[in-house]
Amino acid sequence: MTLREKTGQLNQRMYGWDAYRRTPAGDFALTDALYAETERFAGLGALYGLMRADAWSGVDHGVGPGAADSADLADLVQRHVLERSRLRIPALFVEEVPHGHMALDGTVLPVNLAVGATWDPALYERAAAHAAAELRARGGHLALVSALDIARDPRWGRTEECFGEDPYLAARLTEALVRGMQGTKTQDTGESFAADRAPVVLKHFAGQGATVGGRNSAESELGLRELHEIHLPAAHAGVRAGAAAVMAAYNEVDGVPCSGNRALLTALLRDRWGFQGLVMADGLAVDRLARITGDKVSAGALALDAGIDLSLWDEGFTHLEEAVESGLVSEAALDAAVARVLRLKFRLGLFEHPCTRRGPIPEHTGRAPIPGQTDRSSVLEHTGRALSTDLARACVTLLHNPTGVLPLAPSVRRIAVLGPHADITAHQLGDYTAPQRPGTGVSVLDALRELAPLGTDVRHSRGAALTGGDRTGIPAAIAEAAAADLAVLVLGGSSARTPDTEFDANGAARTVVSEMTCGEGVDLAGLRLGEAQHALLDAVVATGTPTAVVLIQGRPHAVPATADALLTAWYPGPWGGTAIAEVLLGLTEPMGRLPVSVPRSAAQLPVYYNHKDTEYGSYVDESAEPLHSFGHGLSYTSFAYGTPRLVGAAGVEVEVANTGERHGRTVVQVYLRRLITPVWPRTLELCAFEGVGLAPGERRTVSLSFEVPDAVGAVEIRVAGSARGARDAVPVVLDLGPGLRA
Amino acid sequence: MTLREKTGQLNQRMYGWDAYRRTPAGDFALTDALYAETERFAGLGALYGLMRADAWSGVDHGVGPGAADSADLADLVQRHVLERSRLRIPALFVEEVPHGHMALDGTVLPVNLAVGATWDPALYERAAAHAAAELRARGGHLALVSALDIARDPRWGRTEECFGEDPYLAARLTEALVRGMQGTKTQDTGESFAADRAPVVLKHFAGQGATVGGRNSAESELGLRELHEIHLPAAHAGVRAGAAAVMAAYNEVDGVPCSGNRALLTALLRDRWGFQGLVMADGLAVDRLARITGDKVSAGALALDAGIDLSLWDEGFTHLEEAVESGLVSEAALDAAVARVLRLKFRLGLFEHPCTRRGPIPEHTGRAPIPGQTDRSSVLEHTGRALSTDLARACVTLLHNPTGVLPLAPSVRRIAVLGPHADITAHQLGDYTAPQRPGTGVSVLDALRELAPLGTDVRHSRGAALTGGDRTGIPAAIAEAAAADLAVLVLGGSSARTPDTEFDANGAARTVVSEMTCGEGVDLAGLRLGEAQHALLDAVVATGTPTAVVLIQGRPHAVPATADALLTAWYPGPWGGTAIAEVLLGLTEPMGRLPVSVPRSAAQLPVYYNHKDTEYGSYVDESAEPLHSFGHGLSYTSFAYGTPRLVGAAGVEVEVANTGERHGRTVVQVYLRRLITPVWPRTLELCAFEGVGLAPGERRTVSLSFEVPDAVGAVEIRVAGSARGARDAVPVVLDLGPGLRA
Repeated sequence: MTLREKTGQLNQRMYGWDAYRRTPAGDFALTDALYAETERFAGLGALYGLMRADAWSGVDHGVGPGAADSADLADLVQRHVLERSRLRIPALFVEEVPHGHMALDGTVLPVNLAVGATWDPALYERAAAHAAAELRARGGHLALVSALDIARDPRWGRTEECFGEDPYLAARLTEALVRGMQGTKTQDTGESFAADRAPVVLKHFAGQGATVGGRNSAESELGLRELHEIHLPAAHAGVRAGAAAVMAAYNEVDGVPCSGNRALLTALLRDRWGFQGLVMADGLAVDRLARITGDKVSAGALALDAGIDLSLWDEGFTHLEEAVESGLVSEAALDAAVARVLRLKFRLGLFEHPCTRRGPIPEHTGRAPIPGQTDRSSVLEHTGRALSTDLARACVTLLHNPTGVLPLAPSVRRIAVLGPHADITAHQLGDYTAPQRPGTGVSVLDALRELAPLGTDVRHSRGAALTGGDRTGIPAAIAEAAAADLAVLVLGGSSARTPDTEFDANGAARTVVSEMTCGEGVDLAGLRLGEAQHALLDAVVATGTPTAVVLIQGRPHAVPATADALLTAWYPGPWGGTAIAEVLLGLTEPMGRLPVSVPRSAAQLPVYYNHKDTEYGSYVDESAEPLHSFGHGLSYTSFAYGTPRLVGAAGVEVEVANTGERHGRTVVQVYLRRLITPVWPRTLELCAFEGVGLAPGERRTVSLSFEVPDAVGAVEIRVAGSARGARDAVPVVLDLGPGLRA
Repeated sequence: MTLREKTGQLNQRMYGWDAYRRTPAGDFALTDALYAETERFAGLGALYGLMRADAWSGVDHGVGPGAADSADLADLVQRHVLERSRLRIPALFVEEVPHGHMALDGTVLPVNLAVGATWDPALYERAAAHAAAELRARGGHLALVSALDIARDPRWGRTEECFGEDPYLAARLTEALVRGMQGTKTQDTGESFAADRAPVVLKHFAGQGATVGGRNSAESELGLRELHEIHLPAAHAGVRAGAAAVMAAYNEVDGVPCSGNRALLTALLRDRWGFQGLVMADGLAVDRLARITGDKVSAGALALDAGIDLSLWDEGFTHLEEAVESGLVSEAALDAAVARVLRLKFRLGLFEHPCTRRGPIPEHTGRAPIPGQTDRSSVLEHTGRALSTDLARACVTLLHNPTGVLPLAPSVRRIAVLGPHADITAHQLGDYTAPQRPGTGVSVLDALRELAPLGTDVRHSRGAALTGGDRTGIPAAIAEAAAADLAVLVLGGSSARTPDTEFDANGAARTVVSEMTCGEGVDLAGLRLGEAQHALLDAVVATGTPTAVVLIQGRPHAVPATADALLTAWYPGPWGGTAIAEVLLGLTEPMGRLPVSVPRSAAQLPVYYNHKDTEYGSYVDESAEPLHSFGHGLSYTSFAYGTPRLVGAAGVEVEVANTGERHGRTVVQVYLRRLITPVWPRTLELCAFEGVGLAPGERRTVSLSFEVPDAVGAVEIRVAGSARGARDAVPVVLDLGPGLRA
């Protein structure tokens, strides 16, 4: 290969939506921009977001590829690329699949934070498998998925993309993601991918959840130990599970930007962990290195030398030919990166089958096909909706219900459904979602109307907008609340991008003219809901009508605990309204557990359960403890945990009983507390968990195994239903013997 | 020496106030507790706080040693120690001198944060010399002084003990402290100390200003680079200036507690920096290590092995004999520590002169003795008051004065002096201060009454208490404000400990039943003044009477900028009222400059000017920029800065002109911005400063030199009157040539 051809393989410069246009006849035509690109690079390494649709790309149902014609578009581009490539090297189609494929007609799943709340890796694995099948069926190859960021500061707008604050929970879900997307046979990285499986790019590597102040892509000041203990376990688990690729994060770690960080991308990831996959840069991150190198040519050289294989939109990597020729970086480094790109294309079978393989629907992705629906895409859609709804059911978390106002009593004959989120599905979706076809999804209002007992009078008044202080809608809402037996107040935030949102060069939202309060680039200092939402909450509670607050949100907001019941559904996806209504009505038990601590206010940040075991107590004006603990989530029944017993070298068993009168699911959480240790320990560390469904009166002995940390002389094991519960639980001490004492 | 004698030399177990009692005749007698201690250790290594007086120790004017009899007490103890010591090894008397000697009759200086606001190392050096002379004149030897903590989170109650957020400013003031206390000849650590100079223990080493959430002695998650760039320069400067000792900090740094951190205390401090002095533990910090080692014996061994020489109150170090015998730590490590303790005693001349030397007053400590006042202590007191007042004058910082309401116009005939701090000097003092004799100090009200032009009607109403929401005093205050030409509203926080304050074992305040809102152990999440203070501010501003707010505080509080003028005096010391009144009246020009950024609210933390140069902008609900920038401070005149010119390899000169009509002092601040660099740079870094007094119309060329960072290819130099000003200033580029490019 020539230097130019090699350079071309490492470039992913073009926005996919600039590669095509819709003709008046309704077909797709390729653009001069694509021709220029493939000419420049004598082919094409990778194309980003050919199917991406959203406000930033400007792609909507009028112009973009849908479920029916995406594969045709992908094949059209691929054939052109092959024509331009002397060696007939196919292009890699890289797509955003953060919670379902971010394309028109792609099935939207709940966001990662909601997935974290399910504590159910098996369910998530099935959903991930489905998303991969959708992607491949439409001609996409490589799935970009957030998984590695750890939610340590809820001010950060990308908190919704995290599985939570805990490294162990994130690691288990990252493994499930990799297994689901790639299949379980790809753990040996030599394996090729099945036609309905997709190699995954785990993002972001590393420490992006630790940027100061929750400010997007700001610096992280973390030390190496903190990084390894909190921010790297998910990545390590993903690599061990066989992840095909990782994306370098925007941020720097203690002074060195991830995209130019050889210690991170090469010494740790490749040399120490044995990762053989691809490392992709985040959008324009290579060019950002020019801030310290002085120009984009040396920026590209620094990134390649550090371990970046494939760029994203950057100019820096387009100059690699020049960088090699001027000696800024070795041709061997270039060759190694090219080999990794080509290897992934081989593993995808693209040299044999460059175009989309349109085979039968695999059975692993969801429930059985519906009789009479044999069309491939409609079956995918059906199983997608089922899986998305199941995840939504599993994520709904009941935080507060002291008077038992939930589930709805049979005596409730009239319900006032209020709040800016009550009747709109757009706010349920989260960031990185494509425009939805009208009628997609179910709001809380829709679902309550459908599912409430016959004869229930379900009234609605929005009461307040999501943002701003306009209180004019509140009197009407109060009137409905006052006349009802129960008020359901659906409040929260939103990451819905609208066509008038302005964007940074990398697609992060800039000037927020929409109602966005969350998402990439939308960081929120105060953690408060909109002013009118707060006023609405106060006014509705003041009516005296029993009130259940439902939060639809991409981060924990600080909401006063004044209502009779509080539940959070995070961004539960299009069918989240169904899941929420089922829980309110008691048709589904609340199963979610908090994947993040819920702070009392922004003033007490950071709050996470696994802080170091130091002697600090409290601020003089506020507790340092969160309002709701990591792992917390109520049921409509009650559970009792027995005293744990150690089993073998690294196992524990505990008897769990359903002591209430309804079926329910508890998540048995095992926490570890290091006793004799060379490094200052955390108060608690989650080390195992398992969801257990129990019938009323049923008791079961649950066995869990955990990993014993290195270089530790003794640990306590505590089993409970939340981190706060574990603090008060009776511990069992596991003495690891003097041999292990460091 | 026997193992027991050696162990004794490393112990500083006893509280000094338990060593004596006041007899009915008014003399001092030694206690059984002291006899037991000197018996146990066959002598005594060091005695902490023999002269300490405060609410925690319970020592007040009724029982404690004052200026007149401290030396007698010290000598009494010393003679007893010598009798008990086979080798006649004298004890070291270690005293708190955080801002003046924390003893009865000790001169209280403004707190470190106020010293930071002066930007005047020369003045501080004189004040430090005075404090050392006071200490030695009373029989104390070793001065414990906070200097190394960097204020990165104003929620931390010990923010008042920091010189500010900037490593360069802190380094210059730490040098001044060491030079002032120890004298300039001690830079060669072999030198002995003059009789009026005191070896200094710089605390705390290291990273204590970086504990998460501003929580006292919580963990620091910082990486090594961040530690070196921000938190270590002051320590390094202090060590280079010849500091006799440092104190290991309570916190851990990235997992390893400072007291057990060999990498920090030995590899960095001793091996790399060449420090030959003493390392002392913080109070009970050695015993805290038992949390990870399992018991206090191994905790002591770990601390000694890491590099701790002298304990503080711990049990762990009392078992060193046993630890050596059981092989937990080597006798060589014990010997090295003993040698360092003995060496300090030799350098103090204690073997020759174990008792207090009562010689003539040295002249370097302040202004010339007052004729007729030849008594040693009264002269010390006089120069102490003068220096303390001078520091207070230099620290008063005018933040906001858009309508020119300050200085007071001659037309102002009636002034309403309001607020909980207006007539009380206790709140001016800060934490770590001894009880004051009645009549010590001058409040703002006192000073305005004394200094306002003849015929000015100065009225007073407190209006509100410091804490709590009691609004009953507000109407009377409003009435005074409404009837006045100007309202002076003196608000803020307080670190005043009262006898009903409860304390932790190490003297940090625990349950705050007093009005403490700041100080050790008093962390404040919300950064807000007391509720009634806010109400008072709103009410007074609403009267329409021009209002100047004066803040007396140990941290920047978030105070709405609704008044016509705002100034902060930090904790300016007993005579701060004089300094404040002089500035309000225009008798003294406002000279202070902010040593910390002032946040808009706790929700935007952290805020500091020298964050990394990343692309983040703002939160959607609040700016990420501080309300007032580091380095900011207004004058009653105006200054113009010319374009800077580079001079030589590392110098810059700039013309500064006083363009107003009053004399004034500007602080010329030189900031550096790294361009070509291997490590991600900060937006700006302070690298030189100089205070310049100019008459109206005067212009002067100011030359400053700075240090060029290592491994950097090019830097920009910007000169301005604040960090925010530097951001907009015209830069000059210093190209360091390809040879330096990393």
